[in-house]
Amino acid sequence: MKTAGVIVEYNPFHNGHAYHLQETKNLTAADVTIAVMSGSFLQRGEPALVSKWARTKMALLGGVDLVVELPYAFAVQQASIFANGAISILEALGVQELCFGSESGQIEQFLSLVKLRQTHQDAFDAAVRSFMQQGMSYPKALSEAFAAIQGEHAILDMSKPNNILGFHYVQAIVEQGSSIIPRTVPRLSAQYHDETFASASIASATSIRKHLTANSLSSAAGVIPPSTLIELENYYETYGIFHNWERYFPFLKYKLLTMSPAQLSNIYEVQEGLEHRILSAVKEASSFISFMEALKTKRYTWTRLQRLLVHVLTHTTKEEMRVNTPTYIRLLGMSKKGQSYLSAYKKAASLPLVANIKSASHPLLQLDIKAGSVYYSVLPEPLQSMMLKRDFTQHPIRYDEVAKRFQI
Amino acid sequence: MKTAGVIVEYNPFHNGHAYHLQETKNLTAADVTIAVMSGSFLQRGEPALVSKWARTKMALLGGVDLVVELPYAFAVQQASIFANGAISILEALGVQELCFGSESGQIEQFLSLVKLRQTHQDAFDAAVRSFMQQGMSYPKALSEAFAAIQGEHAILDMSKPNNILGFHYVQAIVEQGSSIIPRTVPRLSAQYHDETFASASIASATSIRKHLTANSLSSAAGVIPPSTLIELENYYETYGIFHNWERYFPFLKYKLLTMSPAQLSNIYEVQEGLEHRILSAVKEASSFISFMEALKTKRYTWTRLQRLLVHVLTHTTKEEMRVNTPTYIRLLGMSKKGQSYLSAYKKAASLPLVANIKSASHPLLQLDIKAGSVYYSVLPEPLQSMMLKRDFTQHPIRYDEVAKRFQI
Repeated sequence: MKTAGVIVEYNPFHNGHAYHLQETKNLTAADVTIAVMSGSFLQRGEPALVSKWARTKMALLGGVDLVVELPYAFAVQQASIFANGAISILEALGVQELCFGSESGQIEQFLSLVKLRQTHQDAFDAAVRSFMQQGMSYPKALSEAFAAIQGEHAILDMSKPNNILGFHYVQAIVEQGSSIIPRTVPRLSAQYHDETFASASIASATSIRKHLTANSLSSAAGVIPPSTLIELENYYETYGIFHNWERYFPFLKYKLLTMSPAQLSNIYEVQEGLEHRILSAVKEASSFISFMEALKTKRYTWTRLQRLLVHVLTHTTKEEMRVNTPTYIRLLGMSKKGQSYLSAYKKAASLPLVANIKSASHPLLQLDIKAGSVYYSVLPEPLQSMMLKRDFTQHPIRYDEVAKRFQI
Repeated sequence: MKTAGVIVEYNPFHNGHAYHLQETKNLTAADVTIAVMSGSFLQRGEPALVSKWARTKMALLGGVDLVVELPYAFAVQQASIFANGAISILEALGVQELCFGSESGQIEQFLSLVKLRQTHQDAFDAAVRSFMQQGMSYPKALSEAFAAIQGEHAILDMSKPNNILGFHYVQAIVEQGSSIIPRTVPRLSAQYHDETFASASIASATSIRKHLTANSLSSAAGVIPPSTLIELENYYETYGIFHNWERYFPFLKYKLLTMSPAQLSNIYEVQEGLEHRILSAVKEASSFISFMEALKTKRYTWTRLQRLLVHVLTHTTKEEMRVNTPTYIRLLGMSKKGQSYLSAYKKAASLPLVANIKSASHPLLQLDIKAGSVYYSVLPEPLQSMMLKRDFTQHPIRYDEVAKRFQI
């Protein structure tokens, strides 16, 4: 069986994702598609709009055959660590081709840039250091260093989020010596950060979330598949909320008010005396957005600060994040085809498969459990307790059962 | 000037407290009355119904001349530590007589029992140990040990909360070699834990809180002074809540879900493997009361568990609680008489007076600040931020200003 992998967050699954999945199948002629998906908290340092279970259903209904979780220790990370974790998991599952979205859809650009960077590694690293000493944020310094080594005839604009992720996917494949073949399909019109619905049927997840926060689900109907719409409606009806940072702010603030600078400096990514800045700003902050506005500087990007605050919220320490590579694969959902593939491949898989966390134990998995627990803190009781329990008893979601409910 | 001290929580100030204060003045003929009062969290391990500022106003309007705070490190503690802290503060303020409420109103009983216990110290301690080995809680073992050394002709029933506190006040005075003269006035009819309004004008604070939680302020009008009623009405109108454990439960649960057993075992009073019991029970608990029901055993009394959970909520560690004696006196409020007394006595006071925490720094004070911050976590924004700020800028409340508003 031929397998293609995708690296996703599906926050939520929309028409652009459906298009990408279809193009992935066309391009790779894969029999089975495998998605490695962030769990409760995302790469940009935000809580997912809805639970990973709801997003797994969207993925299955959208045509993914196997959904596995990118552990917290790799999901809530800068692009290079995020990419390394995701590629390791796809490799361990025997995935043959990776297909990601990019601006141009030209895989050669990515391969060339990875090679170019390797050739000029010392100059590149020196440039990054120098730009950072000038006060630039790390991503900005990276982007400028890429511009510097590319010279006049730029291969890729490394200020675009999708190009950054794509570059790191390809680099992870090369550096890990993985046999995965990287491919890319061009994205349709919507820009990553667009906040308005740019075209009739394709919109960015950012713009969709913005509309959902305003509780006008129906207005998103044109840019998400009906299955996503129904799943979002179900979620809101059952839990009464969509998750966003503001809902977690009372917990974040409470947490910070009970922490000393020394305790805060143990948290992952808190460095360079940032603990004092954080503890001073939080006292005056009456919302997450005002807190972020007070914290942000040229040196720390918005997403880096958001990730750091997710680590505070989940109390994730530097010690806990001392990991290099995934150590298990948590199964979230599967179609019949996904299940057959797993049965056939199980013995060859280079990492243990975790179908139920009740029967598994691992420090990295503890981080996922903790993040999941915190994620549900904003739900009213008894829903919160029910979801905590469910996380321990939930087996991977089967497409058949979901499809039955949706009468597909 | 003659000074009398009282040790209080005023949660809230009611007719029984007004009676006790009047009797204290009658008995001691004091010119100035000084109350040392618990702050945000109380001896029984509960958040105070309303803030310490609101309760300070009630105390001033009730006739207290000087209100000072019993630091968190002594307030949220078993009777002996609570009493030691309070007596130290009264002693440092030059208080000449202490007057507490008791069942009998006979100070000789307390003095005799303290002496009896000193005489039989070894036997008493052995009895406590032996009773605890039989599985009794510490207070139960104490009470049984007292019964044992008292023999047939019991002096005091040490199962009554007021007798226990009174005993420890007197014992603290004796053991500290304090020159304070202990006195006691008999309490009126209401029992400490009564949950109904026992008589026409006197009811226990417990029963009053029970009625307030049900939001029927007017029904408490017969058993609290008009000034307390108005202050409670103001508080509810301004902040929209009365504080109780259930409101803090989402924060407590969130906190526990991010803690490892090792981290939890650093919290004050968490011992004997209790951390595992707590972390296991909290996952299933959908309310504070159900959590407590799941935790309680014969060995751990309700109040001991509640205090422990306050320490979890405020993240108060064993290390932070390694203190023996108060190191400052925080002024919360004063009448003109209280102010004159302070001016005259200031130089003789054996501890520094803190009128404004902005200009003071001390590890113990940090605990009070942290507890105060946590206390306001249940308020909606921007009220929460306002109260956090106020705690830093608030000067002691003046009776004159409060009375003006109340048109007294």
